[in-house]
Amino acid sequence: MIAEHGVAGTSHRRVAAAADVPLGSMTYHFDGMDALLREAFTRFADQVATLAERRMAAAGSLEEALDAFAANIEEDVFGTQRDLVITHELYTLAARRPEYRDITTAWMARTRATLEPFVDSTTAVLLDAMNEGLSIHRALHQRSPRPGLAREAIARLVRPAP
Amino acid sequence: MIAEHGVAGTSHRRVAAAADVPLGSMTYHFDGMDALLREAFTRFADQVATLAERRMAAAGSLEEALDAFAANIEEDVFGTQRDLVITHELYTLAARRPEYRDITTAWMARTRATLEPFVDSTTAVLLDAMNEGLSIHRALHQRSPRPGLAREAIARLVRPAP
Repeated sequence: MIAEHGVAGTSHRRVAAAADVPLGSMTYHFDGMDALLREAFTRFADQVATLAERRMAAAGSLEEALDAFAANIEEDVFGTQRDLVITHELYTLAARRPEYRDITTAWMARTRATLEPFVDSTTAVLLDAMNEGLSIHRALHQRSPRPGLAREAIARLVRPAP
Repeated sequence: MIAEHGVAGTSHRRVAAAADVPLGSMTYHFDGMDALLREAFTRFADQVATLAERRMAAAGSLEEALDAFAANIEEDVFGTQRDLVITHELYTLAARRPEYRDITTAWMARTRATLEPFVDSTTAVLLDAMNEGLSIHRALHQRSPRPGLAREAIARLVRPAP
């Protein structure tokens, strides 16, 4: 419902109709729209973070971890139109209402944690930021980035500045 | 109006009321909501890009340019709640509707162009992506990043990978 109609167009009534349940069961289980949005976005962030964790769990060395992180950027993040839209709906909500930033903060913590067996924490924060920036720019630029750009960015970031 | 009510809550009627003009003058000057949104977001992106260009125009060397780019990330981007929200409203709109990606593409081109007197085009693309990622993560994380993080990221990115 959020992918189709956005946060602004999502209501208990619409969700109940889509789920084919009585409206009363929505208001019984969810204490207002915020409870419903929190549940939806928390689950969404969990699914995307889990995908990144699975990619990274297969890595046995620094090089494998960096390759896996690049593959996550290039193949998993915003892999569908649905993911792209829901992520930006969450970011817009969290931009407007700081009480939703616990969801985005927890998501960043999980992505960074996948890197921490391999790099120091500053590098993990920078790689996570680069993941965000490259993924958004790939999605919102009219031309595709050149192949290998994510791996190049990662290679530059893993060396400390002089 | 977009900062307050979002794209979904912005209408000719509301804009006319806020501007204290007759509704008919809105529909006379703007050929539908898309024309109004395009004008609003194009102006917004222009204002933010111009701020970055002014920062960078004062730089006379590579080091000054990189310091200015870091200052732009840390002080200008999402400098107000209004900017943070409008940017994310634009990104969500462009995520949903590819025909708006000419606005985000032109914005990226201008930011990258501020760097191109100083670095090669791949490095400019990577610095622009890092600007995006660091700015969003600073805004949507509950804790502030450590001081100097943007400058550290930039220093790592300006050296080509081995």
